[in-house]
Amino acid sequence: MSHSQKTGVFRAFRRSSGIGATPGTLDRGLQPISERCRINRISYNSTSAEEELIDTVGELNEEVPANRVYWFRVEGTVDTETLSQLGEAFDLHPLAMEDVINSHQRCKVEEYGDHLFVVTRLPVSESDGSLTTEQVSLFVGEDFVLSIHEGAPALDSVRERILNARGRIRELRADYLAYTILDTVIDNYFPVVEDLGDRLNRIDDYLEQGATGQQRLELRHVRADLLLLRKTIWPQRDAISLLLRDDCPLIAGSTRTWLRDCYDHTIQLMDVIETYRELCADLRDFYVADINYRSGEVMKTLTVIATLFMPLSFIAGFYGMNFQYMPELGWPWGYPFAIVCMMSVAGTLLWFFRRKGWI
Amino acid sequence: MSHSQKTGVFRAFRRSSGIGATPGTLDRGLQPISERCRINRISYNSTSAEEELIDTVGELNEEVPANRVYWFRVEGTVDTETLSQLGEAFDLHPLAMEDVINSHQRCKVEEYGDHLFVVTRLPVSESDGSLTTEQVSLFVGEDFVLSIHEGAPALDSVRERILNARGRIRELRADYLAYTILDTVIDNYFPVVEDLGDRLNRIDDYLEQGATGQQRLELRHVRADLLLLRKTIWPQRDAISLLLRDDCPLIAGSTRTWLRDCYDHTIQLMDVIETYRELCADLRDFYVADINYRSGEVMKTLTVIATLFMPLSFIAGFYGMNFQYMPELGWPWGYPFAIVCMMSVAGTLLWFFRRKGWI
Amino acid sequence: MSHSQKTGVFRAFRRSSGIGATPGTLDRGLQPISERCRINRISYNSTSAEEELIDTVGELNEEVPANRVYWFRVEGTVDTETLSQLGEAFDLHPLAMEDVINSHQRCKVEEYGDHLFVVTRLPVSESDGSLTTEQVSLFVGEDFVLSIHEGAPALDSVRERILNARGRIRELRADYLAYTILDTVIDNYFPVVEDLGDRLNRIDDYLEQGATGQQRLELRHVRADLLLLRKTIWPQRDAISLLLRDDCPLIAGSTRTWLRDCYDHTIQLMDVIETYRELCADLRDFYVADINYRSGEVMKTLTVIATLFMPLSFIAGFYGMNFQYMPELGWPWGYPFAIVCMMSVAGTLLWFFRRKGWI
Amino acid sequence: MSHSQKTGVFRAFRRSSGIGATPGTLDRGLQPISERCRINRISYNSTSAEEELIDTVGELNEEVPANRVYWFRVEGTVDTETLSQLGEAFDLHPLAMEDVINSHQRCKVEEYGDHLFVVTRLPVSESDGSLTTEQVSLFVGEDFVLSIHEGAPALDSVRERILNARGRIRELRADYLAYTILDTVIDNYFPVVEDLGDRLNRIDDYLEQGATGQQRLELRHVRADLLLLRKTIWPQRDAISLLLRDDCPLIAGSTRTWLRDCYDHTIQLMDVIETYRELCADLRDFYVADINYRSGEVMKTLTVIATLFMPLSFIAGFYGMNFQYMPELGWPWGYPFAIVCMMSVAGTLLWFFRRKGWI
Amino acid sequence: MSHSQKTGVFRAFRRSSGIGATPGTLDRGLQPISERCRINRISYNSTSAEEELIDTVGELNEEVPANRVYWFRVEGTVDTETLSQLGEAFDLHPLAMEDVINSHQRCKVEEYGDHLFVVTRLPVSESDGSLTTEQVSLFVGEDFVLSIHEGAPALDSVRERILNARGRIRELRADYLAYTILDTVIDNYFPVVEDLGDRLNRIDDYLEQGATGQQRLELRHVRADLLLLRKTIWPQRDAISLLLRDDCPLIAGSTRTWLRDCYDHTIQLMDVIETYRELCADLRDFYVADINYRSGEVMKTLTVIATLFMPLSFIAGFYGMNFQYMPELGWPWGYPFAIVCMMSVAGTLLWFFRRKGWI
Repeated sequence: MSHSQKTGVFRAFRRSSGIGATPGTLDRGLQPISERCRINRISYNSTSAEEELIDTVGELNEEVPANRVYWFRVEGTVDTETLSQLGEAFDLHPLAMEDVINSHQRCKVEEYGDHLFVVTRLPVSESDGSLTTEQVSLFVGEDFVLSIHEGAPALDSVRERILNARGRIRELRADYLAYTILDTVIDNYFPVVEDLGDRLNRIDDYLEQGATGQQRLELRHVRADLLLLRKTIWPQRDAISLLLRDDCPLIAGSTRTWLRDCYDHTIQLMDVIETYRELCADLRDFYVADINYRSGEVMKTLTVIATLFMPLSFIAGFYGMNFQYMPELGWPWGYPFAIVCMMSVAGTLLWFFRRKGWI
Repeated sequence: MSHSQKTGVFRAFRRSSGIGATPGTLDRGLQPISERCRINRISYNSTSAEEELIDTVGELNEEVPANRVYWFRVEGTVDTETLSQLGEAFDLHPLAMEDVINSHQRCKVEEYGDHLFVVTRLPVSESDGSLTTEQVSLFVGEDFVLSIHEGAPALDSVRERILNARGRIRELRADYLAYTILDTVIDNYFPVVEDLGDRLNRIDDYLEQGATGQQRLELRHVRADLLLLRKTIWPQRDAISLLLRDDCPLIAGSTRTWLRDCYDHTIQLMDVIETYRELCADLRDFYVADINYRSGEVMKTLTVIATLFMPLSFIAGFYGMNFQYMPELGWPWGYPFAIVCMMSVAGTLLWFFRRKGWI
Repeated sequence: MSHSQKTGVFRAFRRSSGIGATPGTLDRGLQPISERCRINRISYNSTSAEEELIDTVGELNEEVPANRVYWFRVEGTVDTETLSQLGEAFDLHPLAMEDVINSHQRCKVEEYGDHLFVVTRLPVSESDGSLTTEQVSLFVGEDFVLSIHEGAPALDSVRERILNARGRIRELRADYLAYTILDTVIDNYFPVVEDLGDRLNRIDDYLEQGATGQQRLELRHVRADLLLLRKTIWPQRDAISLLLRDDCPLIAGSTRTWLRDCYDHTIQLMDVIETYRELCADLRDFYVADINYRSGEVMKTLTVIATLFMPLSFIAGFYGMNFQYMPELGWPWGYPFAIVCMMSVAGTLLWFFRRKGWI
Repeated sequence: MSHSQKTGVFRAFRRSSGIGATPGTLDRGLQPISERCRINRISYNSTSAEEELIDTVGELNEEVPANRVYWFRVEGTVDTETLSQLGEAFDLHPLAMEDVINSHQRCKVEEYGDHLFVVTRLPVSESDGSLTTEQVSLFVGEDFVLSIHEGAPALDSVRERILNARGRIRELRADYLAYTILDTVIDNYFPVVEDLGDRLNRIDDYLEQGATGQQRLELRHVRADLLLLRKTIWPQRDAISLLLRDDCPLIAGSTRTWLRDCYDHTIQLMDVIETYRELCADLRDFYVADINYRSGEVMKTLTVIATLFMPLSFIAGFYGMNFQYMPELGWPWGYPFAIVCMMSVAGTLLWFFRRKGWI
Repeated sequence: MSHSQKTGVFRAFRRSSGIGATPGTLDRGLQPISERCRINRISYNSTSAEEELIDTVGELNEEVPANRVYWFRVEGTVDTETLSQLGEAFDLHPLAMEDVINSHQRCKVEEYGDHLFVVTRLPVSESDGSLTTEQVSLFVGEDFVLSIHEGAPALDSVRERILNARGRIRELRADYLAYTILDTVIDNYFPVVEDLGDRLNRIDDYLEQGATGQQRLELRHVRADLLLLRKTIWPQRDAISLLLRDDCPLIAGSTRTWLRDCYDHTIQLMDVIETYRELCADLRDFYVADINYRSGEVMKTLTVIATLFMPLSFIAGFYGMNFQYMPELGWPWGYPFAIVCMMSVAGTLLWFFRRKGWI
């Protein structure tokens, strides 16, 4: 496969730096050149499949046999130098390459002449339990897919399916490969969303027993994760719907049927996420209501005790005064009288509390 | 009725497992083979109707007389083996069969060549009072309906109506049967929604008397159930509207009139559910306002008592001091003077409380 | 006027009962046959108008002179028997008749061949102050309007206008009569909405003086009524807009101009209701803020008093201890010293409170 | 200018009264005849302009020279009699005249054959600081504008501009005059909105220093005013957009350019109002959070004081007991021991408070 | 470049002043004439670029060589006199010039015959940390861009790129220059938004440790800034989308591809801002929940202490009464008995608190 070579100037720009830099110009040196990323070429047709490691980018320009599908899989942090060479080899548009390097793109689909550029995002659970997403960039041509992404393991299942000829993937063309990758990415959201559902369930169970500060924190983290997922999946849905609607010749009609299924999954995800977000809000409101309710209960206890003992203490204090001329103190029935006083006050108050429903 | 036989590979996949598995491939052994589900074949035309139990799936491929409507009713947990054979017999699309096994689908309508695939969901009240939904999958052809669902009793009324020739069902074709099943499913939502309405009414009544923790829990459960119902009925409405709009030849024009009625019912359900959800939110806000109001009342009581007795107790304590040289203690009018002090303090405070509107 | 007679089977179904019953089948005996409803026939043209009571439904099939407009006015609880006969006489669609009996329909407009079926709802203030709505069903043909409703007085003004030839109603056809009835129904919402506005105004005034539990209840009732009204008027607007858009030959172009005015009124109602709902929410938020503010004020008072007297009481209690060896007790200046202690503590605290802005 | 005379029956109806009255019929006597309103006729062309007071409505039917633009300016409370005569003179539609008398209309544009009917609303600050709106009704013909409104001063600037030939108004036709009036009306909203912005700013500043009940009230008034403005301007925008879109021959293409500017102003107003409404909500939430925060601070103070002095007072009270056999009382070190007790208790508590971050 | 000279009357109007002034008329003297603003003319083609300072506005009308792109850069507060001369030189529409002077415009794009008028807004961080926006007005013709704005440094990077021939800007026409300026303006939002994100992150971290009044204020400022940004960027997006959709001949097809990228950036900004706003709301809710939770904890402490010591103090006070006939006082075991009483009361209460989960 020999691609025409055009001069494609592009640049690596980190959003929020380099304001005013020419869009689409390479700003060499801005991006640290990491250890060179690994490029695999998997080529297959219905009868055979092989995988080889690309050592030098130059190999990309070699002539390759036709009638095969080629999957170029670039893993790791791609540096601008390599990307520049890839751009030359595949004739990529500078704006698309910008979006590959600036890896915080919204999911989207763009059509550049003879290839599609698809940005999608894979959910990644960090080791500390937090959730992030990782960009997977796809260039889809007639007989090749070029995928650029950082993490390794997410797309291994697709590779394995090709090499072991599982399913119908070997029978079909590059557009089906692109669909398979997209579908794998979308499928990765389901366990993440279900995990959030389980966490919400656990919080719910605990809340029935009584609210603590721990659940408040947990709830907030779940809510933030749901916000992130919604923000990520919404444009994903739009992008896939564009692939469905678009009458671009790169996507075969039969592949569209499969993509519609993929689209349904994103809608189902959105549904579940929206439902969870509402559940989250309900739980938070319940939490606050619970806190208020319990504070009210605590305050009732305090009020009952204080209201009961303050008058009693006053009576006791009253007869603790040291005036020389306090006739009650000398009465033989003074002490019982004081006790009766206290008991009638206490009785009245208890009756009052009972009527108010406080005890 | 002999259907053409195609090799349809499909798989049972539980959402969130088997990421990366080829969509539409059977992953045998993943689904536990349950006790075999029961398959009934009800066939009827305007003059006769009969029901027979299908023992082996092979019977499905037997030649059957034309000019009758056939309802294949698959009840219980369908295993992948049976579904595979059904798929071969009816020439079903693998993606549709996936959706049958993965029984947490959104309601939807899909057109596959010569048959429609309809997913709808039936509300089920669990024995512990909680609410779930159960998937009812329908394949609608020109002269047959294949319904696959777990629970038994929901669609018995349709069966009975066919066998006893009640109404016009025996006069009409498979599309009317499909409508009847859909209508029965939608009708099952009304008692569920009305039950939620009754519960809201009860909560409302209790709240007027005073908020307790019980109502908060109950309110939360009602709210979660409404959320579930809304999430279920919304796509149901979209699915039916698709049947209405679609110019698919399988749905006769007269059936569309009936479906429009069914569609109106879903809209009415949505209306009621939205109204209940707003009522729910209002009740919750009222609950919180009530808790706050009552806490305020309790605190007023506490404040009145504490503010009244603290100065009095202080005066009593003051004259309970044991200093040798406290002239008041020796005065003959010391005791009455202290009492007057206390009464004037109490009077001033009571006047202050009255002016503030606290008592 | 002799209508063709078709067998129309229909049924009375109460929503949420009889699930699975054939739609459009009469389920005789489910609906209690009330005292027979009253049917009036008002017929008029530009020169004369007369009203007569229909004794037997059979009279409906009598030949009547053409070139007159007929208004059949069915008042009271219509039983299924009567409705069945009406259906036969006017050749009504069974689904429409279902909607007449099940009188909790959303407002809507449906076209059945040679007549329109319009469902609208009239607001009714119950004697206990609560608000409900009553269904008014209209069948509009080329030269007749059949109105079915429960309450009597709402449409009397229309009847009177016809009989007394007030306005242009006698000059025009059945579509204008239908418009007049619709307009009267919509007009009935205005005093209801204005009454709610007045109640909101009163609540607002009281709130400025201080929140009580009464206003909370009142606010909730207003809010629930607004919810009901919104739920009722929204589909009313859609129904009228359908009459406007529809190119059905039953509605003359000139009548559409009048209907547009009617449509404007529903929009104005929606506007006011939405504004009131927002006002309601604002008042509730204000109520809660007010409760919180007042609770804060109460708590400040409590804190000031408690913080002031607790240290003072402690000092008094301290010198009330009965130790034999407490040198201060024997000092001649012990008592003044204690008083000075107390006064300096009180002074410091008062200064602190002032600085905090609590007093 | 002599207009054809048609009998136009119309009525004065106050919304929410006269339900069931024929729409478009005059209900004479319902509207109190105020002191007769003043009618001015301003006529101008590029070379001259003159203003005269119309004494009798009859003058309206006099022949007037062509090639001039006529602005009939009806100020004050128009009575039904005058309006009826105006309707005859200008051949106005009864529904439009109804809307003039019932002066609580939504802003709207309606086309009646050879004239446009425009309802717009002018903001009016009442003397007590509250905000209302006043209806300005415009009938726009090919060579005349008839404006009917209550208050005097709002449109004086337009009159002055015509008489003094300021700007291009004298060069252009009646549609430009109508635009000028609309633009003046819209311009009157800006100071009102800016005043609300200033009040919000002041509330914001005060809130930083500490929330009082005053700001709560003020905030509520601002919020209610914003609600009123939004409700008024929203349909105003729709009305102007109708004038822009409509291909009515009365509005010249060049005037549309000016109207687009006017339309932009309404959008800018909506923007600012929405932003202020959100600010308002934010301030209210902040207010509540502030109240809560301060209540929490107050309660902390209370708790610290009460928790500190209650145990101390108990110890003092304990040694104030009068038992004959209390060995501590007789000990020489009893008093210092009690003091040490108290100090260690106080120290422990203070350390606890410090650890909790309460002091 | 010699432009035709038309008399363009225009005026400087400050919104909310001069109501009723003729739109598009110059109100000379209303705007204070500031120190004259600086006008630079940068002209370039692919081979050369030069910059010169325009001393007198008259120079603008000089003949200039064709085949170059001219960027007139007006910096500082432009006075009406200069603007009037600019308007004459470039034949600008009076409404556009109004919008230049009234520098609180919404972002927008307007087409005036042979030039486009673009209003965009640049975010500016004031020295006190608050955020404002500054208007940048662009007039884009076939071979020139006229930019008018106050602040200096924002667009220097574009100037530098032209003079140093960085990127492809020198190869392309005036539409690309306009795009570059727009892109630079949009790029300036990213660091502002990211700074708000950092502040939210810091607030989040602090909140985990415990809510203070400081975070409440900070949160409110962030929220107000986000509101401002959303209000600014929303119309910016609409304006750019208009440039994309519009088939105006001034924007070349290739420039549209670049503008689409710019449009994507505004959408990404909106996404992030909306997400931050939701985060903000979540944090505020969390803050309130936190305050409530902590108040509850404080109140529990208070209640435990008060409930524990009030009964104990009462017992102590009880035996501090001075009645002569109190038998317990004389008992030898009276004192131990009182202590046992107190301990059992304390024990019961502690058990009660433990059961309630309060300690």
